[in-house]
Amino acid sequence: MLHIEREIAEQPALIGNLLDRESETAGKIANAIREFDPTFIHIAARGTSDNAARYAQYAFGIHAHLPVALATPSIHTLYETTPKLSRALVIGISQSGKSEDVCKVITDAREQGALTVAITNAPESPLAQAAQFHLNVMTGPELSVAATKTYTAQLTAIAMLMTALVDEAELTDSLNRLPDFISETLSLSDDIATWAQRYRYMERLVTIGRGYNYCTAFEISLKIKELCYISGEGYSEADFRHGPFALIDPGFPVFVIAPSGKTLPTLTDFVSKLAERQAETLIISNDPFLLSQGQKKMPLPASLPEWLSPVAAVIPGQIFAMQLALEKGHAVDAPRGLNKVTVTR
Amino acid sequence: MLHIEREIAEQPALIGNLLDRESETAGKIANAIREFDPTFIHIAARGTSDNAARYAQYAFGIHAHLPVALATPSIHTLYETTPKLSRALVIGISQSGKSEDVCKVITDAREQGALTVAITNAPESPLAQAAQFHLNVMTGPELSVAATKTYTAQLTAIAMLMTALVDEAELTDSLNRLPDFISETLSLSDDIATWAQRYRYMERLVTIGRGYNYCTAFEISLKIKELCYISGEGYSEADFRHGPFALIDPGFPVFVIAPSGKTLPTLTDFVSKLAERQAETLIISNDPFLLSQGQKKMPLPASLPEWLSPVAAVIPGQIFAMQLALEKGHAVDAPRGLNKVTVTR
Repeated sequence: MLHIEREIAEQPALIGNLLDRESETAGKIANAIREFDPTFIHIAARGTSDNAARYAQYAFGIHAHLPVALATPSIHTLYETTPKLSRALVIGISQSGKSEDVCKVITDAREQGALTVAITNAPESPLAQAAQFHLNVMTGPELSVAATKTYTAQLTAIAMLMTALVDEAELTDSLNRLPDFISETLSLSDDIATWAQRYRYMERLVTIGRGYNYCTAFEISLKIKELCYISGEGYSEADFRHGPFALIDPGFPVFVIAPSGKTLPTLTDFVSKLAERQAETLIISNDPFLLSQGQKKMPLPASLPEWLSPVAAVIPGQIFAMQLALEKGHAVDAPRGLNKVTVTR
Repeated sequence: MLHIEREIAEQPALIGNLLDRESETAGKIANAIREFDPTFIHIAARGTSDNAARYAQYAFGIHAHLPVALATPSIHTLYETTPKLSRALVIGISQSGKSEDVCKVITDAREQGALTVAITNAPESPLAQAAQFHLNVMTGPELSVAATKTYTAQLTAIAMLMTALVDEAELTDSLNRLPDFISETLSLSDDIATWAQRYRYMERLVTIGRGYNYCTAFEISLKIKELCYISGEGYSEADFRHGPFALIDPGFPVFVIAPSGKTLPTLTDFVSKLAERQAETLIISNDPFLLSQGQKKMPLPASLPEWLSPVAAVIPGQIFAMQLALEKGHAVDAPRGLNKVTVTR
């Protein structure tokens, strides 16, 4: 069995474990956030972890009313200066905890008196040690180069922090159902495996999300690039209408991630525009009408709340990227040109 | 003559005019910023204007030590809530000033007591009217659907605001030389026109920048998508190493924007990695060694300071996108599927 296949399948159990084991830590961090009372959140991350940070923009922005800035680490490393962060909650996200530039943002912020939190899979790592607080995503070693289980665990960690901070019973109840939502989504595996071959000679695609699932569009696009070597771009549906829409010609494949919720009407309109241009749409949703509009349909659990949907909605994309890479005969666990730990300055 | 061709050529004169006519306004806004003393900057923008906002992240982050968050307008529009912005300088950037979502961010922020600034090409527009202050990019009507002169004018407006705020003579002197830097860069037009045909059948590419020119990578990629209908992705060199590097195979075309300055060493290393993979590199730089490593070389003025380089460095990309679209026989001034004003919620 491939590492990535096992790691995708492990997700419900690992997320259940994470919810059990780290909720006390999340509560402590939430108390510290309340006491510190930040005026904004500043998150440093790269690659897949940066997609998790995009989720945090919506989770904290909508529920905790905290604006979230994504850090530009080169200001700290290459330009050797630092923005004023003394009133910020500064979060560093990295699977390995070894990303030098992410670590530098945390170190600089802590020196200024910011409240610092690391989210990693490695409690002994430099990043985990550099921050005042550490939330451990606890997935165990991830052996596939392409991140899957650590991404959904990072999203879960962010959801746990936000939920602990906002402290509403409805959010907590939904969070505890997350392992079931993910299990249900994993049942799409066999179906996706039967049709992935259709895209064997696809040379490009775009992935579209909005709001909470902006991150999902980026992360599915990243998995397809890493594993299948296909130019796959992630977009907000709103940004895509500003220019890139010109790309769409008949047969152009477009992944649309659009669960029920606030973004559904605008994405339903967008899918109708794609249909006018005869694009090929692959739809991840739990809305029956929208699913009916797609050439390929990846149904999500009916009762999945929108705010938690990114944790489940990425999974059909993970499975698709893996299956397509297998169809192409790629070394799925070790894509060309990549290492598991990428050290960037 | 095409509108876009004339609009690209007009840039030095228009930017000279902007520097003359709006510096007093920039000074007034800078005073208001000093008085307000924001803890961070929050910028709402879409498409090309959002690429200008990326420049602001570095310009304000490095020189004014202000962290810059890029807004997620759907929080205001689709999710109908707002993050706390009362301690922020909130800037809305839009050529037309008609973008409803950008306008909503400004309106919400102003209600909370934030300091609000609009940067538009239309002083009577809803966005210009919604903000407390307006900086007019003063380019006159832009008739090409793809933005060129309004983008460099937006970058210049940001540089003017930052320079007025930081108030260092060296920055002001450089800023006043900007029209000359742009004129010199425009002299590349004839050369690019001779070789653009080489890429007639190119089906994908990536554009890479770092730091200040992260925005340039995004904007060149956007022009190529809009005008040539080619999947062109913009990346930070650091993010590209985290995954997308797997895309690179022999002949893969990569635009690298790497002027002299703090990002040059890491980008020079990156170009050597691309050479190992036999990628095709198109280089925009003023570093003689780095230029020598490219299949195509687009030299920038030797004395162009890094912090201002995005205003000039995008120009070879504008010219390339236009010339390639001409080689492909596209309707360059009116790409398929786009309108000049895109209204998104």
